[in-house]
Amino acid sequence: MCGIVAYVGDKQAYPILIKGLQRLEYRGYDSAGVALINNGTHTYKCMGKVKDLEAHAKEQSIEGHIGIGHTRWATHGEPNNINAHPHTSMKGKFTLVHNGIIENYAHLKKELTSRGFTFQSDTDTEVLVNLIENIYLEQNVSAEIAVRVALSKVIGAYGLVISCEDEKDKLIAARKGSPLVIGVGESEYFLASDASPIIEYTDQVIYMNDEDVAILSKDDLVLKNIQNDAQKPKIQKIDLSIDEIDKGDYEHYMLKEIYEQPHSIGDTFRGRISIDKTKIFLGGIIDVMPKLNQAKRIIIVACGTSWHAGMVGEYLFEEYARVPVEVEYASEFRYRNPVINPDDVLIAISQSGETADTLAAIKMAKEKGATIIGICNVVGSSIPRETHAGVYTHAGPEIGVASTKAFSSQVTVLTMMAFMIGRKRGSLYDELYKQLIHELTLIPEKIEIILKSDSYIKGIAELYKNASNALYLGRGYLFPVALEGALKLKEISYIHAEGYPAAEMKHGPIALIDENMPVFVLATKDKSYEKIVSNIQEVKARNGKVIAIVTEGDETIKKLADHVIEVPDCHEAIAPLLTVVPLQIISYHIAVMRGCDVDQPRNLAKSVTVE
Amino acid sequence: MCGIVAYVGDKQAYPILIKGLQRLEYRGYDSAGVALINNGTHTYKCMGKVKDLEAHAKEQSIEGHIGIGHTRWATHGEPNNINAHPHTSMKGKFTLVHNGIIENYAHLKKELTSRGFTFQSDTDTEVLVNLIENIYLEQNVSAEIAVRVALSKVIGAYGLVISCEDEKDKLIAARKGSPLVIGVGESEYFLASDASPIIEYTDQVIYMNDEDVAILSKDDLVLKNIQNDAQKPKIQKIDLSIDEIDKGDYEHYMLKEIYEQPHSIGDTFRGRISIDKTKIFLGGIIDVMPKLNQAKRIIIVACGTSWHAGMVGEYLFEEYARVPVEVEYASEFRYRNPVINPDDVLIAISQSGETADTLAAIKMAKEKGATIIGICNVVGSSIPRETHAGVYTHAGPEIGVASTKAFSSQVTVLTMMAFMIGRKRGSLYDELYKQLIHELTLIPEKIEIILKSDSYIKGIAELYKNASNALYLGRGYLFPVALEGALKLKEISYIHAEGYPAAEMKHGPIALIDENMPVFVLATKDKSYEKIVSNIQEVKARNGKVIAIVTEGDETIKKLADHVIEVPDCHEAIAPLLTVVPLQIISYHIAVMRGCDVDQPRNLAKSVTVE
Repeated sequence: MCGIVAYVGDKQAYPILIKGLQRLEYRGYDSAGVALINNGTHTYKCMGKVKDLEAHAKEQSIEGHIGIGHTRWATHGEPNNINAHPHTSMKGKFTLVHNGIIENYAHLKKELTSRGFTFQSDTDTEVLVNLIENIYLEQNVSAEIAVRVALSKVIGAYGLVISCEDEKDKLIAARKGSPLVIGVGESEYFLASDASPIIEYTDQVIYMNDEDVAILSKDDLVLKNIQNDAQKPKIQKIDLSIDEIDKGDYEHYMLKEIYEQPHSIGDTFRGRISIDKTKIFLGGIIDVMPKLNQAKRIIIVACGTSWHAGMVGEYLFEEYARVPVEVEYASEFRYRNPVINPDDVLIAISQSGETADTLAAIKMAKEKGATIIGICNVVGSSIPRETHAGVYTHAGPEIGVASTKAFSSQVTVLTMMAFMIGRKRGSLYDELYKQLIHELTLIPEKIEIILKSDSYIKGIAELYKNASNALYLGRGYLFPVALEGALKLKEISYIHAEGYPAAEMKHGPIALIDENMPVFVLATKDKSYEKIVSNIQEVKARNGKVIAIVTEGDETIKKLADHVIEVPDCHEAIAPLLTVVPLQIISYHIAVMRGCDVDQPRNLAKSVTVE
Repeated sequence: MCGIVAYVGDKQAYPILIKGLQRLEYRGYDSAGVALINNGTHTYKCMGKVKDLEAHAKEQSIEGHIGIGHTRWATHGEPNNINAHPHTSMKGKFTLVHNGIIENYAHLKKELTSRGFTFQSDTDTEVLVNLIENIYLEQNVSAEIAVRVALSKVIGAYGLVISCEDEKDKLIAARKGSPLVIGVGESEYFLASDASPIIEYTDQVIYMNDEDVAILSKDDLVLKNIQNDAQKPKIQKIDLSIDEIDKGDYEHYMLKEIYEQPHSIGDTFRGRISIDKTKIFLGGIIDVMPKLNQAKRIIIVACGTSWHAGMVGEYLFEEYARVPVEVEYASEFRYRNPVINPDDVLIAISQSGETADTLAAIKMAKEKGATIIGICNVVGSSIPRETHAGVYTHAGPEIGVASTKAFSSQVTVLTMMAFMIGRKRGSLYDELYKQLIHELTLIPEKIEIILKSDSYIKGIAELYKNASNALYLGRGYLFPVALEGALKLKEISYIHAEGYPAAEMKHGPIALIDENMPVFVLATKDKSYEKIVSNIQEVKARNGKVIAIVTEGDETIKKLADHVIEVPDCHEAIAPLLTVVPLQIISYHIAVMRGCDVDQPRNLAKSVTVE
């Protein structure tokens, strides 16, 4: 959350910053701002999106070869002009963009206030920039030392870039908890929260580590840590093309990413399933296979959509690998005092690889001796660097804030892991193993078939676009899909949708059902088919509207439900990969019809680096 | 779900049936009906509640010393006059009331249709009564044999009472999965789904077992099983007084039960905590203590509100007994293929002790060798009879469909178990153990203090009574309380309320927040207090309305939130018992203000004997 971009070099900074902020908007869009250093610091910032900032900065002086920019997801203080970044210190010495939360800001603010500082905004960031200025002026040290001393007093997370009026040719960056990537050009450096603002200028990057401090000028990069120990910059080549982050002909990134799924799931299993479809090989976890084979328990930690993928994983691991699995919200797991044993394996799932709570949960479990496996999408992100082993999802960049292809790729990885571990542990016999692998490889073409129903599904969306509430029901493998379907609708259309295991209806939520309530029921042919048919009857007995996702050719439910959406027949263990697609499509269309900003839903942001 | 009552003796049956049905209305109120045997069978039934039935039967012949009655929660077929019970067979030989689901009804119906049977209703019950008639007429056997043969062909669950035109002096009852109690009077027998319709006539009862068949006439009771083996009736004395099932001066049972909590929680720990408050002794689980001491894992299964209590249990057991706990929806647990080891302990929680999914989960885990402990409220119910050990909650009869005092008593039992096991396992040191016990014993008087805020809380309810949605947030021990608070509001006011772990907000649900969204935040002083304050700021930054439950004297949140409701200070481990109370009260008042039927919310019923 919150996006940072910065430039130092010979080019004009402003266009680079604006383009970069647009690419980072998925990280927050409550407000945007830039500061350009050119005979003093010129700061332009306003509430709203980057396009509002552009309008605001029009006809202003946008000259400058050094600059910093920020797009905000509000934590402390509501989204408005004053709370927008960059923030300048009281005496104007420093200008700062910051991503993260300074947890002890109230204490620091009080101290600074007693020293005569006054504050314009409600932000923790303004406290930090004044703390730096206070140290700089009182202790009469360099900007760099002031930054390092200040950061040693701070509790919390940050990715930040700061400029100093007295040292106009340089920028200082620091990270702890929030990602920062340095792009290395010729006589120029870029800085950003991820590589997307950088890739058209250079493919050489340095991922900053926690507690790293970088001092950048046009021709020089110094990397050290807060304690002033020199750090060796590790330059990597990034493998990301402009095409991958382009919307193409699609109206929204979300739609593009829904349609990419046959391809992205294919990318997830490419090179990991043998050509004769008889074996799964996940190179990233090969070193921890002995641990996995002996694990008495697997703990999956994740947040949001990734948590739903984790729940699919629970069912798969328990059924095929015969190992007990517990799925935990990372935020809950880390703050209670869970029992973790050295023979436990913890799997952390995160698209961005930066999710703050998930990262903290990993660190805790690692300290207690558990083996940690990561399932992430963004290569080089923080979580893969903290784990013992991991499997990248290779879904490609996901820009839409509501996750779609990242979810299906996470489920694909978990499915492969469950089958592979099941086979190794001897709980999955060879014939079924091969059948399941074969079924998995058919998923991309089956999703292509579902995508052909787009306009039919759009017709159903039209009927329910004005709903104010919705329920999603599923059983077994499809219960997590119900949760995920509800989350999609909630996120982008602001309809209050909620998922439930179908049998729980009778224990409360059925009270909500009346003739206005659309109920989405995941009801493909599997071992709980008869039970879900009974649940549909219970909903219909209360006059609810039922939209059922069914196996093609199902006649029983067609007679009961108001609408059916067919998906191709498949083994129940991989049905989540198919059944989630029509739910993504229907959420997309409903949100578009309601005039919502599909790719940038209100209040939300991707890559949740805030706890 | 569904309530059955029947009488055979010298008294007039009708008033006994009506009064009995009123007592059983918590089990369903979609329709009601009676059949009186008196020179033929006179059946009166209609959609709606028992009072509608009374109006309907007015000025009809209500004579008869034998009769059966039913109050329905609809499963197959919408709630209407035709689908109401009793159902009579096509040729009029049999009249049946039934609680449960005949799962193979479609198959049986097809077979009967091919034999010329026609059906009036959409119910599975009408299929069963015709199946019995078909066997009776075709095989020329007694009514009892026809019933037993028919039941051997049935897949599903039933509690039933049936009368036969040719054997007018008797009733036949049978049970499998759905409870039935026989009341033994002098020259009279009563039959009901629970003891409440019986207690003013006799305190001598027989709890029927699964597959039992009872043949009752005024002076004779024969008990056998479906296979025709004689069963020995075990007559028990019941300990339940009319006062306990009376509403007293309260406007609703729910309000009475909220106010009973200081008393009911006291009853839960009475005799289980030593007088000097230094020891917990739970006699019901003493035999399985060695298993609990060695358990590598505890699995908690439950549904609805009991599932929320189970989640509180998870946090308590992990923290104080240091044993990994998994909490499962019974309905999900039983249908997937979970890993269960003989050294696992399964705890099943159910107020009624009859919850069908929970009962099935127990049976499955028992087969796999796990040790089963029950936490139930209704003495003599099915679950306690299936478990190896158990602890009754002793909350007294809970009549309001939305559970309140049963929840707090379940949490009390789990709290005592966690402390006791923690002490035995050595993971809870003696000083803290005693402190925790002491704190627990203070809960009743602290709840009394909260109850004094009733009118203040009512004032807040007034402000939000027109909300169409609400969110409930909590962390740690208070996350399950957030779920429970949301469920209460949902159940009785039909406002779509949803609970979340506070940190999950940013992963989706925060998109729902605008100036119309009340957000209830559980924010008492505990180890995640600072984090929940940050979450409140995030909600306020989006203009949501925050109603916070805080520790008395909290000044920080008072400044941030729109309203605060104070609860007395207590140890965080027992805070669920306090913080749930204001949420119960606010739900109650909002529902009353919206004109909802608080004790009998639409679509719902207590004692979910349907899967």
